[in-house]
Amino acid sequence: MTLVLTDLPDAAQRAVAATRERVAALHAELPRNQLVVWTAGNVSERVPDLPEDIPGLFVIKPSGVSYDGLTPETMVVCTLDGAKIVDGTPDALSPSSDTAAHAYVYEHMDHVGGVVHTHSTYATAWAARGEEIPCVLTMMADEFGGPIPVGPFAVIGDDSIGRGIVETLRGSRSPAVLMQNHGPFTLGKDARAAVKAAVMCEEVARTVHVSRQLGDPLPIEQSLVDSLFDRYQNVYGQR
Amino acid sequence: MTLVLTDLPDAAQRAVAATRERVAALHAELPRNQLVVWTAGNVSERVPDLPEDIPGLFVIKPSGVSYDGLTPETMVVCTLDGAKIVDGTPDALSPSSDTAAHAYVYEHMDHVGGVVHTHSTYATAWAARGEEIPCVLTMMADEFGGPIPVGPFAVIGDDSIGRGIVETLRGSRSPAVLMQNHGPFTLGKDARAAVKAAVMCEEVARTVHVSRQLGDPLPIEQSLVDSLFDRYQNVYGQR
Amino acid sequence: MTLVLTDLPDAAQRAVAATRERVAALHAELPRNQLVVWTAGNVSERVPDLPEDIPGLFVIKPSGVSYDGLTPETMVVCTLDGAKIVDGTPDALSPSSDTAAHAYVYEHMDHVGGVVHTHSTYATAWAARGEEIPCVLTMMADEFGGPIPVGPFAVIGDDSIGRGIVETLRGSRSPAVLMQNHGPFTLGKDARAAVKAAVMCEEVARTVHVSRQLGDPLPIEQSLVDSLFDRYQNVYGQR
Amino acid sequence: MTLVLTDLPDAAQRAVAATRERVAALHAELPRNQLVVWTAGNVSERVPDLPEDIPGLFVIKPSGVSYDGLTPETMVVCTLDGAKIVDGTPDALSPSSDTAAHAYVYEHMDHVGGVVHTHSTYATAWAARGEEIPCVLTMMADEFGGPIPVGPFAVIGDDSIGRGIVETLRGSRSPAVLMQNHGPFTLGKDARAAVKAAVMCEEVARTVHVSRQLGDPLPIEQSLVDSLFDRYQNVYGQR
Repeated sequence: MTLVLTDLPDAAQRAVAATRERVAALHAELPRNQLVVWTAGNVSERVPDLPEDIPGLFVIKPSGVSYDGLTPETMVVCTLDGAKIVDGTPDALSPSSDTAAHAYVYEHMDHVGGVVHTHSTYATAWAARGEEIPCVLTMMADEFGGPIPVGPFAVIGDDSIGRGIVETLRGSRSPAVLMQNHGPFTLGKDARAAVKAAVMCEEVARTVHVSRQLGDPLPIEQSLVDSLFDRYQNVYGQR
Repeated sequence: MTLVLTDLPDAAQRAVAATRERVAALHAELPRNQLVVWTAGNVSERVPDLPEDIPGLFVIKPSGVSYDGLTPETMVVCTLDGAKIVDGTPDALSPSSDTAAHAYVYEHMDHVGGVVHTHSTYATAWAARGEEIPCVLTMMADEFGGPIPVGPFAVIGDDSIGRGIVETLRGSRSPAVLMQNHGPFTLGKDARAAVKAAVMCEEVARTVHVSRQLGDPLPIEQSLVDSLFDRYQNVYGQR
Repeated sequence: MTLVLTDLPDAAQRAVAATRERVAALHAELPRNQLVVWTAGNVSERVPDLPEDIPGLFVIKPSGVSYDGLTPETMVVCTLDGAKIVDGTPDALSPSSDTAAHAYVYEHMDHVGGVVHTHSTYATAWAARGEEIPCVLTMMADEFGGPIPVGPFAVIGDDSIGRGIVETLRGSRSPAVLMQNHGPFTLGKDARAAVKAAVMCEEVARTVHVSRQLGDPLPIEQSLVDSLFDRYQNVYGQR
Repeated sequence: MTLVLTDLPDAAQRAVAATRERVAALHAELPRNQLVVWTAGNVSERVPDLPEDIPGLFVIKPSGVSYDGLTPETMVVCTLDGAKIVDGTPDALSPSSDTAAHAYVYEHMDHVGGVVHTHSTYATAWAARGEEIPCVLTMMADEFGGPIPVGPFAVIGDDSIGRGIVETLRGSRSPAVLMQNHGPFTLGKDARAAVKAAVMCEEVARTVHVSRQLGDPLPIEQSLVDSLFDRYQNVYGQR
């Protein structure tokens, strides 16, 4: 069964349109922060505030399209099983080949409103060794509350990537996971928060890598990691 | 014997003009993706759909010209033996000093429609050690289907670079070869695909390098490499 | 007790406005010189030439605001105890979460007119190992007059970061300190000088790191460091 | 004795003006190619085709001025002893603090028409170890004809830097020298050629550094270096 976008109530159509705007605009942060090359990498966001009788929806990048060509209209609307909504336009694009992984996360983690996937260089380099990033920076304690964990090797095409993400991050403070030999996935309350986590994940992956090249970074005591994390989550930024 | 461009049938002249446009525009991707400095690096494309009685042609960058000064008009049209077409304009430029290598590839690999050469930093660093890049990333399995191989040391000026490329890549899944002490050459069905391969080649060269700096990346089983490659070549992107 | 900005004499209000302009504009140098990602990093400047009966003031970045959104109006005015001035506008923003550290420096180092904090990659990598940067470059002797020292591990939220900066840099020629596991703070006679020190700190952190990766950089004799430092501080630039 | 610019014959004044234009414009290549931060780095050019009875002149960057503020008018005209020409404008700027080194090169190497000095990261990292860059890349054989040599440690302020450059490069094919603990100086027939050499010097410094991080680059036989150098100097580019 496929939903038709123009059959939805007006408020839901407006929510979908606003999400498409946000997701299209946030994709620009990926090349701007040097997290992606060519067409790799994708951002998705759960459509917020839908009426209860409408199935959950999210918006994601079309597959294999260049970052220069991304507009709100080209963003693809999907149901949480990853099936694309047939929205009436005959030239609607296919969603990202990572759509099944995004969908699985939305279906199994209710508090997640945004997901980002990249192959950013330093995070992927840790992932290729299957090695978690140790928490040796105060900015890492702030944002991740501990090490950034490694998820299992998983092939694309079924729900094994999604399952690997959820099993690794459920119960973790970290909004990022390094999928082995593959690259980082990051989560957030919305797409903007997940993009921020992707940017910070690469930055700490790079800084800890560089530090380790010439010796061993000094560990930070767990109680200090805890208090940095608590303060950052509750005090930082504007109320 | 030299061909004169304005003697060709109209359809052929239009195909040449369109190829010049594409090749000039694609050169901008080289500095944009940080694959080249100064005037190094070049893109060429076989002119498609020429009438059968016209010898094969390709379009390539002029030699030693800055990326800012590249326009469709400055692109040089060559026959497959690398001889420049005298196109009537008295100020026609000399083609890239790598023209013989591009020509050799077009003459000996019918399915190749585009060739790119750069000295991109990380790929060239592997080439200087004469070491192939192992396939330890899913994105590398996707695009290259295995390791990126090393070609022989070859001097410029005869067909030894072209022969080295063809002998290394014939029968390989990889669209990229690292010519020893020199740098990468990449192939594609058209110039855009070859540029994409050049971008991906540098990105995986860099990521695997970084990963190896702090230990050994985990290998990916051959059967998984195969299935990633098959899926990417057949499912990824828009139909 | 809180000061109200519009109660200050006209000359003081003009000095505050000019400082806000400078501090807002200088923040653009942080991403431009690749010292920060996302909203991390902050610049402050002491308001110069205030009447004697007005308490010391400085201007700093608001907390957690993106670099694209920084205007003179969004800059926050603080007294030297770090308390924000209630300036009459109901939507005045909260100051940077590093404000207490900046305030402590201004209160305890009279000659300091500008402070910058970043998590720039290479400087932070040295900080994570708790290792000072040795003075092995003439440009480092010029600007820093010796090694860049490491300050103590200190948690955010009280004055321990400020104290660590002051105790490390009092009596040092270096305008930069690497706070352990955290990142660099730099000082200057005004905000522009502190930003320059932040840029140079990252550049020498990176260059010495790269040099050390393949061996030991050659030391520079102390007497030569001294004469380079003296000349640069007194002769370089326009009179 | 000081020359006054407006006392020179018209043709000489035009040659000076044209050189100022070129030198000002070429400075933009330094930040664009990421060779400099802040105000570091400078380009100079000998004024060509002056009448025989006028002493040699060159044009160089003013000291400590930001790259954004460089215009032809701010460029400083110097005689070959490094003394600035008093050109009548009361606000004429002081020349770069490296002026004496540039002047010494022009006075002692007649074929040199342009000089560039930077602290570019990777070249300076080799310089800090006092280690020449081995010739293991074909593009290095093309441009440098062999290794890039190291010059002596020399303090600024007298002619010891200039002497170190000339003694190291006289009789060498390389247009670049790494001054120990300091950074690269590059020479060319004009300023543009010296800028190109500075860009290539950093690129090969970086590529060979990266290659060496994971093993030993393969040497290139001397006879092959020779033939690559000869071809590049005589065949490459447009006639």
